[in-house]
Amino acid sequence: MKVLLPTSVPLAPVSAPTGHDVVFVDYDVSSPVPDEHTDAEVLVAWGNPRAQLADSARRLTSLRWIQALAAGPDTIAEAGFGHDVLVTSGRSLHDGPVAEHTLALALAAARRLDLMHDAQLAGRWASELGGLQSTEPSRFPGLGTLRGREVTIWGFGGIAQRLAPLLESLGAHVVGVATQAGERSGFTVITEDALAGRLAVTDVLVMILPSTPATAHSLDTARIDQLKTGAWVINVGRGTTVDEAALDVALRSGTLGGAALDVFEREPLGSASPLWTAPNVIITPHAAGGRPLGVEPLIERNLAAFLSGSPMVNQL
Amino acid sequence: MKVLLPTSVPLAPVSAPTGHDVVFVDYDVSSPVPDEHTDAEVLVAWGNPRAQLADSARRLTSLRWIQALAAGPDTIAEAGFGHDVLVTSGRSLHDGPVAEHTLALALAAARRLDLMHDAQLAGRWASELGGLQSTEPSRFPGLGTLRGREVTIWGFGGIAQRLAPLLESLGAHVVGVATQAGERSGFTVITEDALAGRLAVTDVLVMILPSTPATAHSLDTARIDQLKTGAWVINVGRGTTVDEAALDVALRSGTLGGAALDVFEREPLGSASPLWTAPNVIITPHAAGGRPLGVEPLIERNLAAFLSGSPMVNQL
Repeated sequence: MKVLLPTSVPLAPVSAPTGHDVVFVDYDVSSPVPDEHTDAEVLVAWGNPRAQLADSARRLTSLRWIQALAAGPDTIAEAGFGHDVLVTSGRSLHDGPVAEHTLALALAAARRLDLMHDAQLAGRWASELGGLQSTEPSRFPGLGTLRGREVTIWGFGGIAQRLAPLLESLGAHVVGVATQAGERSGFTVITEDALAGRLAVTDVLVMILPSTPATAHSLDTARIDQLKTGAWVINVGRGTTVDEAALDVALRSGTLGGAALDVFEREPLGSASPLWTAPNVIITPHAAGGRPLGVEPLIERNLAAFLSGSPMVNQL
Repeated sequence: MKVLLPTSVPLAPVSAPTGHDVVFVDYDVSSPVPDEHTDAEVLVAWGNPRAQLADSARRLTSLRWIQALAAGPDTIAEAGFGHDVLVTSGRSLHDGPVAEHTLALALAAARRLDLMHDAQLAGRWASELGGLQSTEPSRFPGLGTLRGREVTIWGFGGIAQRLAPLLESLGAHVVGVATQAGERSGFTVITEDALAGRLAVTDVLVMILPSTPATAHSLDTARIDQLKTGAWVINVGRGTTVDEAALDVALRSGTLGGAALDVFEREPLGSASPLWTAPNVIITPHAAGGRPLGVEPLIERNLAAFLSGSPMVNQL
């Protein structure tokens, strides 16, 4: 059996289960698969352009399984592969990197690294941001510290469960929001029915919702109004889950303390978007993930499962 | 016994041990202590100007103990208080806040939030910093992630022991440098004798050294040359411990990946300093600490020890 491995991500050697005749072949995701490898039964995909995927769908006639490394492999679903081709995603591979970026944004918001950088660009020592600090609210909307802050994570999956312990190590108190209430990984999880009360005491709202019809504009004017005055919003999920026009209004009126945004309703964020110039906004260019980690073990685990007919991880 | 409490930091009510006649009086650190309170035996100090301290040294003739809330209460030592006046510092009160700021700087360096902010100011979507990421070195000197990075913390005291577990939670490997080798809080600690070899594999060097004659210019040209090419330097200890001229040369030559600096040889950092315009530098205005946490328990614990003649915490 032939497995095509992308050169778009550095990979350590991948092993096949003993007793199986598996050949691993590297391929360049930016070019059509060479003719001598169109007999591959397995395709591992990372960053393949749409045209390359469409070409693969036509020419890889022996294909039985695609292991995507992306968390949400939308382009593969649209490429025209046969319905008998299994697809598994790389969802879990991005939990650590996205949690890391989210923590970076939360700390930048707390310490207002953005305002310090503005001062640096002007060659100015920002004495108003250094020296003796007040733990009281200041004229620079910020959290001062994450210690003692109430953080609500809306969308409490794999990323949130990596992020929440880091926030708690820094002294924050974390509550999750998901479709089922209860306790998950030691954290209290509530449903949207109980969200209004929670938002009223929330200092930082972290959005990690996927993009589905049900999550469109989950954070709208009504929900923003329920948030504690001065709260910060961080979005590392999908841009469609936040009503950007409502967010912009709340930022400009000062209802919200600020926002740190990695995802947007339309990406790249257009130059006409008012968010570029809204006050107290930190914008990063969909940079939270994009670094799959633990690819080799996932491929090996799913390859063994595929060969033995067992359930595979992240099957779509 | 009268204890003067500063209004420069918000304090919850402080209790005295039962059986002792203790009166707590709030005072404004920016004004001379009112005549009716110059009989105080205990002064708690936070942000007192030099002139106020010199005035207190002259007029508080019953003073027996000063509880400073600063980590290094240099101004109190210089104010002219009698040698019979005990001084205890607020060293431990700053471990959490400084560790938090250090983590913020490390994550900003890893994710290059500074470059993303530059793009934001220009209203530009920084596609070169987002989307699919390489885990390989790029043309933007950065660490990409803290995961898998080798972090060396030079000065492995209270702050480092708060910081190191946070870094390890993010997947970094931490080694400390102190005056005694061994294991501390579960982390390997080496001495400066073994530092050259460690620097050669270090991705991030965190300096948390105090300012003493022995630590002056600890990080000099020779030590910088021992660092792995492309390493980042973070300094949250004291500016005197880094040779800024040598650092500037290494940043401009590209020997170092970058530097995140909260402390400087002279503060405020003068507008003529070349560091303002050196490449890949993140400057914050001595903002890591300045937020004493846990003040009330420290005062209560030391007050009980003072009254019973037991050893006090942080006695100088």
